[in-house]
Amino acid sequence: MSEASSERVTAAVLIIGDEILSGRTQDTNLRDIARYLAVHGVDLAEARTVSDVEAEIVAALNALRARYDYVITTGGIGPTHDDITADAVAVAFGVALEENPEILALMTAKWQGELTPARRRMARVPVGGSLVKNPVNGPPGFMIGNVFVLAGVPQIMRGMLEDVGWRLKGGAVTVSRTVRVDGSGEGVIAAPLEAVARAHPAMSLGSYPFFGPEGYGSNLVLRGRDPDELALVVDELIAALTAAGIARVVEVENA
Amino acid sequence: MSEASSERVTAAVLIIGDEILSGRTQDTNLRDIARYLAVHGVDLAEARTVSDVEAEIVAALNALRARYDYVITTGGIGPTHDDITADAVAVAFGVALEENPEILALMTAKWQGELTPARRRMARVPVGGSLVKNPVNGPPGFMIGNVFVLAGVPQIMRGMLEDVGWRLKGGAVTVSRTVRVDGSGEGVIAAPLEAVARAHPAMSLGSYPFFGPEGYGSNLVLRGRDPDELALVVDELIAALTAAGIARVVEVENA
Repeated sequence: MSEASSERVTAAVLIIGDEILSGRTQDTNLRDIARYLAVHGVDLAEARTVSDVEAEIVAALNALRARYDYVITTGGIGPTHDDITADAVAVAFGVALEENPEILALMTAKWQGELTPARRRMARVPVGGSLVKNPVNGPPGFMIGNVFVLAGVPQIMRGMLEDVGWRLKGGAVTVSRTVRVDGSGEGVIAAPLEAVARAHPAMSLGSYPFFGPEGYGSNLVLRGRDPDELALVVDELIAALTAAGIARVVEVENA
Repeated sequence: MSEASSERVTAAVLIIGDEILSGRTQDTNLRDIARYLAVHGVDLAEARTVSDVEAEIVAALNALRARYDYVITTGGIGPTHDDITADAVAVAFGVALEENPEILALMTAKWQGELTPARRRMARVPVGGSLVKNPVNGPPGFMIGNVFVLAGVPQIMRGMLEDVGWRLKGGAVTVSRTVRVDGSGEGVIAAPLEAVARAHPAMSLGSYPFFGPEGYGSNLVLRGRDPDELALVVDELIAALTAAGIARVVEVENA
């Protein structure tokens, strides 16, 4: 982990859930986490989706937490038998699970003492973990080492993320701008785009083609850490596209 | 890989693209592939998303193809400099890339000979690979070993999947045929297509609109288990489209 804002800070997302791998549920957490991390200057470098099998979760988590500055998991922290994320995280870190008194108190206040065994499951946190607040519904998530364990329900996950950002070290905010080309395909855009990309290795230049009855073209997204260099590269790219005979080039608002 | 339908057949998905990890694009291919594999009796066991970096793609692909019966990749097969999936797959398999004459011929026919270097990039296939048809737009994908390399654009990816299922072992074998409609949009195709689909619930009928400089229309892909019923449904569909006043309807080759 880095204290210096010039150093790249990385993260991985680990999505836990058979419902994603069966195609029953459309994941949106990856995109939301990616956007959240980008704002905090952290690069999401990899994502994995695994099933509700302890050995799979442990193996993926240990691979990812060794390699990246942070890992954010989603899913598997509910009250049912297939919610085994806390167990798997404890195994991965080689520690025990213990009932967290703060979560028990929260749940007691909320459910007026009706602490069923299923609900008590949700109070278990690996030894050494700290809580991640849940502003939405249900018990908190937790953090242990460089791993954040969040809910799978998107609305709850997004709420928990708000208690993640302040713990992320060293990131630098990334800025981005978009240049849209109308009426030209990637085949003609590629050469000028590549020339500009090669001249600015610190920048990320991506081409995202669109087509439909309304027309076709490509959105060229430029991303980097230095706003001044970014502005320069936008100008260079527009000039290069224009010089290549591509007429309909405009900068557009970033999404 | 299994020949017996009672044995579990597994697959992994490898999503390649900075646009997913940056949060700019919401992936939907994982869900679509999961559902498609489920219909074919194949379990999606894991998914990974990696950036447009060759070493990352190679490492993930080699890990997944060794572990699961099949790997399906999406993204990174377009004409721009950041489209490096073919290169990475060739490295993973330790083979060279070569220009595929069939793809070159397809592209020459479509673009009337305007084979820019960027377009020629899309004709490169690792030695030993076979093509995966693209009923939508642009060049085909390919298969090598137990790996299918498909486009990232969801509409094109779904079309390419139609040429994947019949190659999957151990699952339920399906046959497919394609009817192409030229010069009519989905708005007029939808009603006769739906009528035929409702009359044959055991069949899968998908519509894959295409549009571009060369014209527009839709490829209607029919899939099922029974070749005799499939032949019947092709005839019924052509008759229904013709009766609806759609003139330019032809059956086209499908693997």
